[in-house]
Amino acid sequence: MSKETQKSFYTTTPLQEVLRELSKIGIKRKTEKININEAFGRVLAEDFFSPINVPHFKRAAKDGYAVNASDTFGAEEEEPKILKLLGEIRAGGKSGPPIVEGGCVKIATGALIPEGGDAVVMVEYTEEEENQVLIYRPVSPEENVIKIGKDIKEKQKILSKETVLKIQDLGVLSATGVTEVKVYSKPQVTVASTGDEIISSGADLELGKIYDINSITITQAVRQSGGEPIYRGVVPDDKDDLVRAIRYSLENADIALFSGGTSKGPGDTVPTALREVGKPDFLIHGVSIKPGKPTAITAYDGKPVFMLPGYPTSALMVYYTIVDPQIRRWAGLPLTSRPRVKAMTGKRIYTERGRLNFQPVRLEHEKEEIRAYPVPTGSEAITTLASSQGYVEIKPEIQFVEEGEEVTVYLF
Amino acid sequence: MSKETQKSFYTTTPLQEVLRELSKIGIKRKTEKININEAFGRVLAEDFFSPINVPHFKRAAKDGYAVNASDTFGAEEEEPKILKLLGEIRAGGKSGPPIVEGGCVKIATGALIPEGGDAVVMVEYTEEEENQVLIYRPVSPEENVIKIGKDIKEKQKILSKETVLKIQDLGVLSATGVTEVKVYSKPQVTVASTGDEIISSGADLELGKIYDINSITITQAVRQSGGEPIYRGVVPDDKDDLVRAIRYSLENADIALFSGGTSKGPGDTVPTALREVGKPDFLIHGVSIKPGKPTAITAYDGKPVFMLPGYPTSALMVYYTIVDPQIRRWAGLPLTSRPRVKAMTGKRIYTERGRLNFQPVRLEHEKEEIRAYPVPTGSEAITTLASSQGYVEIKPEIQFVEEGEEVTVYLF
Repeated sequence: MSKETQKSFYTTTPLQEVLRELSKIGIKRKTEKININEAFGRVLAEDFFSPINVPHFKRAAKDGYAVNASDTFGAEEEEPKILKLLGEIRAGGKSGPPIVEGGCVKIATGALIPEGGDAVVMVEYTEEEENQVLIYRPVSPEENVIKIGKDIKEKQKILSKETVLKIQDLGVLSATGVTEVKVYSKPQVTVASTGDEIISSGADLELGKIYDINSITITQAVRQSGGEPIYRGVVPDDKDDLVRAIRYSLENADIALFSGGTSKGPGDTVPTALREVGKPDFLIHGVSIKPGKPTAITAYDGKPVFMLPGYPTSALMVYYTIVDPQIRRWAGLPLTSRPRVKAMTGKRIYTERGRLNFQPVRLEHEKEEIRAYPVPTGSEAITTLASSQGYVEIKPEIQFVEEGEEVTVYLF
Repeated sequence: MSKETQKSFYTTTPLQEVLRELSKIGIKRKTEKININEAFGRVLAEDFFSPINVPHFKRAAKDGYAVNASDTFGAEEEEPKILKLLGEIRAGGKSGPPIVEGGCVKIATGALIPEGGDAVVMVEYTEEEENQVLIYRPVSPEENVIKIGKDIKEKQKILSKETVLKIQDLGVLSATGVTEVKVYSKPQVTVASTGDEIISSGADLELGKIYDINSITITQAVRQSGGEPIYRGVVPDDKDDLVRAIRYSLENADIALFSGGTSKGPGDTVPTALREVGKPDFLIHGVSIKPGKPTAITAYDGKPVFMLPGYPTSALMVYYTIVDPQIRRWAGLPLTSRPRVKAMTGKRIYTERGRLNFQPVRLEHEKEEIRAYPVPTGSEAITTLASSQGYVEIKPEIQFVEEGEEVTVYLF
């Protein structure tokens, strides 16, 4: 092992510098047209202008009689105006009889106001007698009428580019009759585990092997970040296999995620493989966070490659800290601010000085207080992660947090 | 119109009574086996017991040399024990050379401890020289060894029935090598809009017609509640069509959702249709909430049918208030407690006395304060709903909320 390789294995980069390096990557976002039925949570890739007026015809706002308002002027309880009943129009009707002077048309809420009509008298202020209608109150023009374009005007910008589509936004889109919208494509993210001891779930369990955990957890995490995971299975812990797997990702996806096998043997497999793939835009091998020190990050022509640690807890913690914001940025989604709670530590938490510590904790409600107990992360244990509800971030200069100190817990 | 029908049209049931009636419905939950890759957010239908020990073999916790601990007793810096190097085992290896007295095997973290070994000496406290290894520190039995079943024991219950599967739970499941889990099936929910004036998005826009909004919004809301929506399009506002549509739902789904057309014409179409379908378990026509008065709710042999109002805002508000908890219960999901914020009303809010009022509001941040402005709901307008971020609940006995009063806003 050369001195230089040894150095590259042990040099760790501060988290802020890692995030700064990643923020420099110019994202080549793709767009696609999708059905609005599938568009919930997706991000608009263009301003949306309504192709129509909503409503696109004059509608009755009440049940009653469509009239020409001037025919009702002067009507009162004791001296109603009497109009001729020309016919009826129900909601959904394409046309009713035109309203000529002295006439009216029975109309349902939401129905088209027939030609010649400009107002609706509410049914409560009328009385129908054979072919005529007694009008007890006058209406002014436009009264009880929903005007064309009242809700949405044709060519009006109703949703802005970058909008993350909510249910109500889908409602607005469907009101305009569109079936498709242009959104940013989800970034394609390959997910693979590396390591000779890893086998996929369902495979026969041989001595010396353990089942893959990270592919399942990371695949789901990618979905939640707004990415489209492409499951690539288990990659043997071998330089040539790794080089092939990375090349596949660069050709077929936007982002590559691996976990495990990054601190194997002499420690230079990963940097050697990463240099063999091509000229990296940058190369980080080692991040000064705990857990997550053996993390390697690089990019080729703007496509990032992340090599997460193998321990499930470590892999997920590094994913949330470093990878999640990148996938969100790629997808056009806003960064999530994790929900947090204040808690008292239930036990002294030891940390590693010089690294930013992310300590998973188990929360217990004790009377009015929430207590946070550290959960060990330095092992393969997955059950411990399942039992933790969040994590505490501890600055590099702090060596331990005393029992009973107040801490902020970021919830999973 | 008979007096009785008229009465049934106007009788409104308080919300609490509606929810109590619905809570009496005995749910017939189905279960299914699904791949763990698809199981995020689903609800376990049985306790899960691990089929294996995790790990299922004795593993090295550190890089170093697997030994029989007793061979290292008495080792010290100045007087190392010297052991014969019998071979090597890497992570994933099926077997290494058995460890005989006075021998050791080079071992990688995570690898199988060969037969005869009971501890691992960390590489830091050794020196390898040709075919022998100098041991500078003694180890005790089990030191640096991960025992069989340390993380998960065979037959141990690791996840309880009713667990809503989180990412970490999927990790636990995959550690045991299972590929499938038994979960509650999502309730099948038909979604249709009724009304002669409604046309599906994409259809030609004729005079008098408007595009369907509710099917899109309600379909998505059903997904979020944990249901499986079955889109059934637009049903004409006709008794026979309605009867057919309800019968279809009862035969093919668990829950039926309609919106619109419930207060048409003389007002007895809906109750008449509902009685024609079969003998209802109960029949509510009118709920004393605003918006949502014309809501009709019934059930046949435990399968609920909801007829929501036609206005998009009203339909969604009633959905969240009444339908969402039913679908969650059916799916086995916990009820959501909507996130809420305190705000000051920015304008006086008028309500309808005698009904529980749900008033959508638009929030504005003004300096340190959040101000809530009422958004009108009594119309077809969908854009107003899109501009509101939550709603305020106002008790039936209150007639208006003054400007500047503090209110709790439930966020959408």
